[in-house]
Amino acid sequence: MSSYTIPAKAIVTYTDQDWRLQNVLCREPGPNELLVKMVAVGICHTDISNVGGIYPRILGHEGAGYILRKGPQCSEELAGGDPVLTSFAYCKRCHMCKTGHPAHCRDQIPLTIQGQDQNFALADGEGEHERLEDDGFGKKRVIKASYFGHSSFSSIALVKESSVVPVKTLIESEAELKIFAPLGCGIQTGACAVVNMIKPDPAMDSIAVFGLGGVGLSAVMAASALGVKTIIAVDILPNRLQLAQELGASHTINSKGLLKEQLTSAIRGLEPFDPERAGEEAPFGPTGIVDTTGVPSLLQAALASVDRLGRVVQLANQGPGTSVTVGLPEHMRDGVQLVGTIQGDAVASKSIPMLIKWYREGKLPLEKLEKFFKAEDFEQARHEMHAGGTIKPVLTW
Amino acid sequence: MSSYTIPAKAIVTYTDQDWRLQNVLCREPGPNELLVKMVAVGICHTDISNVGGIYPRILGHEGAGYILRKGPQCSEELAGGDPVLTSFAYCKRCHMCKTGHPAHCRDQIPLTIQGQDQNFALADGEGEHERLEDDGFGKKRVIKASYFGHSSFSSIALVKESSVVPVKTLIESEAELKIFAPLGCGIQTGACAVVNMIKPDPAMDSIAVFGLGGVGLSAVMAASALGVKTIIAVDILPNRLQLAQELGASHTINSKGLLKEQLTSAIRGLEPFDPERAGEEAPFGPTGIVDTTGVPSLLQAALASVDRLGRVVQLANQGPGTSVTVGLPEHMRDGVQLVGTIQGDAVASKSIPMLIKWYREGKLPLEKLEKFFKAEDFEQARHEMHAGGTIKPVLTW
Repeated sequence: MSSYTIPAKAIVTYTDQDWRLQNVLCREPGPNELLVKMVAVGICHTDISNVGGIYPRILGHEGAGYILRKGPQCSEELAGGDPVLTSFAYCKRCHMCKTGHPAHCRDQIPLTIQGQDQNFALADGEGEHERLEDDGFGKKRVIKASYFGHSSFSSIALVKESSVVPVKTLIESEAELKIFAPLGCGIQTGACAVVNMIKPDPAMDSIAVFGLGGVGLSAVMAASALGVKTIIAVDILPNRLQLAQELGASHTINSKGLLKEQLTSAIRGLEPFDPERAGEEAPFGPTGIVDTTGVPSLLQAALASVDRLGRVVQLANQGPGTSVTVGLPEHMRDGVQLVGTIQGDAVASKSIPMLIKWYREGKLPLEKLEKFFKAEDFEQARHEMHAGGTIKPVLTW
Repeated sequence: MSSYTIPAKAIVTYTDQDWRLQNVLCREPGPNELLVKMVAVGICHTDISNVGGIYPRILGHEGAGYILRKGPQCSEELAGGDPVLTSFAYCKRCHMCKTGHPAHCRDQIPLTIQGQDQNFALADGEGEHERLEDDGFGKKRVIKASYFGHSSFSSIALVKESSVVPVKTLIESEAELKIFAPLGCGIQTGACAVVNMIKPDPAMDSIAVFGLGGVGLSAVMAASALGVKTIIAVDILPNRLQLAQELGASHTINSKGLLKEQLTSAIRGLEPFDPERAGEEAPFGPTGIVDTTGVPSLLQAALASVDRLGRVVQLANQGPGTSVTVGLPEHMRDGVQLVGTIQGDAVASKSIPMLIKWYREGKLPLEKLEKFFKAEDFEQARHEMHAGGTIKPVLTW
């Protein structure tokens, strides 16, 4: 166990339900790795629902902290003491990375949700666990990490350089750093689904957002920040619809109990949409729809609701084997685009400065989404997120 | 019947199978209509398979001819004697038309495949037909037309101005005008699926084309004209695969009997595709796939074959109720785009000059696709097209 020397506290996941705050030991950073003292980390649904089945592991991928020290070959622009936010790791050398699409890196799966570098071991006193693999050190104590390149559910994390966004010139205080912790995943995903994938012309375009968790509400805020006038927010929880309205939604629809045809009618009944043909009794539909649910019936409603040449952005799914049926005559006739995306095709080094700028302009009121919990209260945070009362729990170390 | 005064010959469709060359009378052009003496017209699969169930009607929508005279309110730029090609009609006033997407005009269906203006009547001696509606003139002789805004299967056609592309400055002879007849639909659709919908970067992108009829082969020619190096042509007919190779395909795959997984493997086995990672044993796939078949299993193979962030362009369908199942985890992970389109989002006034330029540069060898038939030999033309021996039959008047 000699290579694990740096003491930390981490939330170790043994099953989907079994999370434990434990004393751990971290190894020293290797090439292109940073040791980061975390101050805050958002909890994302990916942490809760989609851990990739790898245990025991440290999750967490919306981190904020300060660089403690660098491994070899790290950029000269990074220095000990610098504040950073964490986003997702990428290979930097495949065609997707080199052409500006790191979220779709060819190694995206192994570098993010399947990240399992053996970065930690349980500290003395935390015992051994039957669930642990034999770690080759004669004891069953190694804990996998490198989730999204960092595994930020740890007071000290071993972070791949590609997943770090330096924010030294962007933040004013440690309090702000904590507020910005979730920018690098959920907030960025919703915002970039609008900015990068729909690219709305605020003078002409309209947007609907299905599902008003942190991602969906970020899509609403982004559409509003860009000046889109017709923003239709769809969810089944009245408090979220209310919040969407506060964040800029012009219309809300409670889809609870609605058949997909009813949802389509509700959306298309809202607006004339086509300014050239206002007054004609023609139900058109929004230019773009961001679906954050991955629910097949909602995606079908989205495909049927979107305007001609409209784009349905699919940024979630309900797991292996789930699918949506696309009617080919309609898809062709209407020129619809069904577009899958990870992270809204974000480049974190660009989106995070944009989001911080919006925050300063009052266009990204993160305080309406976030609630802070001490790290040891992670169970309460998970519970409130699951129950829907808290949109974005942020754990602090 | 006094309003029908202009004698012509037309191929009148009474059922999908029952086409008859008959003497007809055309009415005078109304506002924004032109009377055009047709010299040639291509036959498209839409004429054969998708007539919209409206009978009796004159079909044909790939016409070439000379303006005889203009109705009121036509552009000053058009004059009697001017050569024109015909494409599709559009409303010019909806949002789609005004923003440069006339192929997806809100009135696209009524103005194209459902066009049924009462422009013609049977001439004396052609009798009356039980299948004809009472035309309000006391006789059952009115023939519907305005298919795609013109119905070019007629020696003289009544053409909506929006469906005309003037080519006075572009053509050198009547013989050329005949060669260019099919540009305004099938050729344009395949070419624009590549030019407008895939927008390939020839240095980096690769394209597969499923189905090598006139549309698919035009996609191959367009990809080649743009300098794309890896062009994969897929069909079940050896003569078409051979022709695709002559037209620029770098690889051909005979998909006859292949399961969709086998087709996917065959495509992904061809190339390393990602120049940054050549040498790695990673099957990627082409950047864009143009599906001209609308066959659900082929579209599923396309979705599974296309590279990350790749685009599958769907420009055909197999009729009402046909659909494709899109796996949501894969669609999201790979950032795939399934994009429906009509006419490859073409604007005929732009695409036709581009196509004629390519023809002059030797990049659009239409003679390899076209075969000319006298109008009265339409049955033979249909037969050869159906049997696959003739890609693009062109009838001449």
